[in-house]
Amino acid sequence: MNIENLQPLFKPNSVALIGASNRSNSIGSVVIKNLLQSGFHGCIMPVNPKSPSIEGVLCYKDINSLPMTPDLAIFCIPAPGVASVLAELGKKGTRAAVIISAGFGSGEGEEGLRRRKEVIDVAKQYGIRLIGPNCVGLLIPPIGLNASFAHVTPDKGDIGFVSQSGAVVTAVLDWAKSKHIGFTHVLSMGDMIDFDFGEAIEYLTKDPETKTIILYIEAITNARNFIAAARAASLIKPVIVLKPGRSEEGAKAAASHTGSLAGSDDVYDAVFQRCGLLRVYDMNELFDTMETLARNQELWGDRLCILTNGGGIGVLATDKLIELGGTLAQLQDKTIARLNEVLPTTWSHGNPVDIIGDAPGERYANAFRIIMEDTNVDAILVLNCPVAIVPSIEPAEAILNAYKANNRHPKPILIAAWLGEGAPAEEARQLFAVNDIPSYTTPESAISGFKRMVEYYYNRKKSLVSQAEHQKFHYQESHDILQKAIANKQDWLTEIEAKNILKAYNIPIVETFEVKTPEEAYKEAKKLKSKMVLKILSPDITHKSDSGG
Amino acid sequence: MNIENLQPLFKPNSVALIGASNRSNSIGSVVIKNLLQSGFHGCIMPVNPKSPSIEGVLCYKDINSLPMTPDLAIFCIPAPGVASVLAELGKKGTRAAVIISAGFGSGEGEEGLRRRKEVIDVAKQYGIRLIGPNCVGLLIPPIGLNASFAHVTPDKGDIGFVSQSGAVVTAVLDWAKSKHIGFTHVLSMGDMIDFDFGEAIEYLTKDPETKTIILYIEAITNARNFIAAARAASLIKPVIVLKPGRSEEGAKAAASHTGSLAGSDDVYDAVFQRCGLLRVYDMNELFDTMETLARNQELWGDRLCILTNGGGIGVLATDKLIELGGTLAQLQDKTIARLNEVLPTTWSHGNPVDIIGDAPGERYANAFRIIMEDTNVDAILVLNCPVAIVPSIEPAEAILNAYKANNRHPKPILIAAWLGEGAPAEEARQLFAVNDIPSYTTPESAISGFKRMVEYYYNRKKSLVSQAEHQKFHYQESHDILQKAIANKQDWLTEIEAKNILKAYNIPIVETFEVKTPEEAYKEAKKLKSKMVLKILSPDITHKSDSGG
Repeated sequence: MNIENLQPLFKPNSVALIGASNRSNSIGSVVIKNLLQSGFHGCIMPVNPKSPSIEGVLCYKDINSLPMTPDLAIFCIPAPGVASVLAELGKKGTRAAVIISAGFGSGEGEEGLRRRKEVIDVAKQYGIRLIGPNCVGLLIPPIGLNASFAHVTPDKGDIGFVSQSGAVVTAVLDWAKSKHIGFTHVLSMGDMIDFDFGEAIEYLTKDPETKTIILYIEAITNARNFIAAARAASLIKPVIVLKPGRSEEGAKAAASHTGSLAGSDDVYDAVFQRCGLLRVYDMNELFDTMETLARNQELWGDRLCILTNGGGIGVLATDKLIELGGTLAQLQDKTIARLNEVLPTTWSHGNPVDIIGDAPGERYANAFRIIMEDTNVDAILVLNCPVAIVPSIEPAEAILNAYKANNRHPKPILIAAWLGEGAPAEEARQLFAVNDIPSYTTPESAISGFKRMVEYYYNRKKSLVSQAEHQKFHYQESHDILQKAIANKQDWLTEIEAKNILKAYNIPIVETFEVKTPEEAYKEAKKLKSKMVLKILSPDITHKSDSGG
Repeated sequence: MNIENLQPLFKPNSVALIGASNRSNSIGSVVIKNLLQSGFHGCIMPVNPKSPSIEGVLCYKDINSLPMTPDLAIFCIPAPGVASVLAELGKKGTRAAVIISAGFGSGEGEEGLRRRKEVIDVAKQYGIRLIGPNCVGLLIPPIGLNASFAHVTPDKGDIGFVSQSGAVVTAVLDWAKSKHIGFTHVLSMGDMIDFDFGEAIEYLTKDPETKTIILYIEAITNARNFIAAARAASLIKPVIVLKPGRSEEGAKAAASHTGSLAGSDDVYDAVFQRCGLLRVYDMNELFDTMETLARNQELWGDRLCILTNGGGIGVLATDKLIELGGTLAQLQDKTIARLNEVLPTTWSHGNPVDIIGDAPGERYANAFRIIMEDTNVDAILVLNCPVAIVPSIEPAEAILNAYKANNRHPKPILIAAWLGEGAPAEEARQLFAVNDIPSYTTPESAISGFKRMVEYYYNRKKSLVSQAEHQKFHYQESHDILQKAIANKQDWLTEIEAKNILKAYNIPIVETFEVKTPEEAYKEAKKLKSKMVLKILSPDITHKSDSGG
């Protein structure tokens, strides 16, 4: 892959919007507003033959009138006009475009496919890199670029988000905004006639600002590139993938949506696993997972302590943790002893640490400080259910202060679940969010998010091990055997050859040797200490069976 | 069970609060405020020896000073004082009490157990019915009774909610308030030294205002009563149960919480299934399920049509539906033809009906009206993802108006999922909520809620069938055999007896007869057409094997 030529796409200094509009609620009007209002420092040039100005900015009637060559062109005009304008831009020197317009697919019949080919040809001719068509647009918050018709402008942050569905883009942006979770890039991929998942992942992997990659995939078109990019990515940052279409009906719906056949879900599942991606199965899980993995806390172990003001919700959290294969921390005796000193006698005397419904902030903080110092604990889930006698914000502030004050290294992860839909619980969750602490509305969602952190922790450990294993393979031996077999025009490998290939990859085999004479066989057999069977590989060797010890 | 004597507990005309307080943020102060501010029309009498008035209401120094005998007494005083005051009330004629105070369990050692026994004895002596101890209190919104320290006063509605955890009570009340979902009764059960799940269910089953029963159970104490009550309840209203403690760790946490051993989860699971209860496994599922089942829509079939403005979220909904064993409606040809007339050519041409991201309210309504008339459709899930060009409220209003205007009978169910955490989507969801239409924030939660409706629909069908089956059993025969065996002091049933019991319940058996002589055997054998084996039941019968045809 060559991602060097993506510079104009992802770091443009000037942008032209082909099809900018003053007509309210049209896509051209939403995109120009988003472009102008998101803090982009480069030059923004609206293009529309009919308007002298758009949103108070001078509008250009065509490509020739542009005062400079735009690095990036955004298309909102109807499909039939795209190819010719793209060619004009190409001649001028533009090397990147985002085509928001739809109308280039098989859904539009032969006409659609013809347009598609035309755009591909123009792009090839001028070396233009394309995102889309049929997408929501491109958002790069760190440079203030919002070239999309999304309804919210996301915050700057460290997630790279790549989605094949515009609906999922807007739903995720809306959710993330409320959680103060930001992005480095939001790439709405559309029909992917040029730029695809493999390149997107490669680019985001190399981008140092991107700490987590989120993918919404309906169908992968270039599997080889995808796998290579995904494997490399997951070694250095968590990659979360939501892919629907598990069911036949879902796959059918996806096909009618993106026009591409999704293929067997089992294949995707195997690929995701092999690449070390964290697969989530629905939008709730995606949100749960983003909440923890987007917060940049690093996990150093999987042992969870639950601190709660309600027995019932502690039990629910424990159940979910065990169901998902998690580990409840075994508190040290001295931790229990110290908790005995600061908690009422009716506390649960174990993990979950139930500090009773009337717990004020101070009791939460006292218990929390003691748990933080227990080296059997890698993560702490603090639960709070609303009670009339203590305002929800009080324990939230107390926990947060205690967490910040603690200097243990590596620091246990803090996860919060403040139950309740009302304003007090929401205020507490917002306090956690702005302090980059994952916060949830139910114990189970918190556990679901934690589980993905644990999964990533183990994936990383495993991939480091498997890399080491990898280096022990004898590629050259295997390569030589295969080359020789190809040269000899063999249809099959001999038993010896096949076994030597297995051996090259450290796969255990029954040791087998090729010998020409009974004497040779005797000699080889003498060397071995284990039992053996001598197979006759050539009819001119006299039968001789021997078992040495 | 005798639930006749529950009248003073659930329909009191006067309430005394033992331990009312002016001390802010104490339980006694929260409960008196809740009592006074929730619209109860009976007489509320605070009792506290130290305060002449509490919250502006005359306060009584002891039981003797009370101007009348309270129907119901609420206890917030420390545990040691409860039994003696309860006895005074009993003498006066009070027959119901809610003990909020804790301190009657094994956690408090022998002292706790002694207090517990004392309270039980007093209650028995005077025939007082008790809720608690160690609970959040009792809420009966239809009569304006909030005798609890919950932080919100729930709306009047048609859910009966019984919970063994106070934390779960407050979490559910908070959630329900935001969803405009109300209750007939909220029963915080605490340690259940008297009133238990069986009675609660029986009472709520007979209460005509209660349309749905929700249970949070950690451990059942009186299994026989529970099963009888639950079976009867689920025949006439949906009963949803959340029971944690599936894992050993969860069960241990539950035991430290309620002090009772939960027992094997498999047993609970079997009991719940046999009783036709809808089991949910976590709080998210509980909320998803309440959202549909609390809305009083009746389902007449399981075929779901999905209407969406985003392809991706339609695929996610489809996947989840199929995963949970649901059924995607097969739209009629004429429906497709009619949709072709009103939708842009790029619509999905099938179910999910994807009407494209720029869909305004009118397009939603047009498609919805056509789908409503398709008799292959039993339920419609309408999805909306936020877009900049159409405000979220517009399609919500359009769909709601179209739904209300439709007169098809039986009417398909409407479920809405408006994605997004921002104010616009929330406004749309609130519009659905106040109109008693279930609404969700993700497609998968909506499907999870719908699935429980379907489960209930099938449970009801099944239980009607199984009742019919039931009537075919020959109870008397089975009863006679058992009575005879008991009279004969048999340790074991004979093969013949055991088989005849199986036969009485229509369980297939190998036909077996008892005969005394070879001639008798020959005679019986002649009557039969199938192959048979003659077993010798008594040594004085000559061996003779015969296979007749």
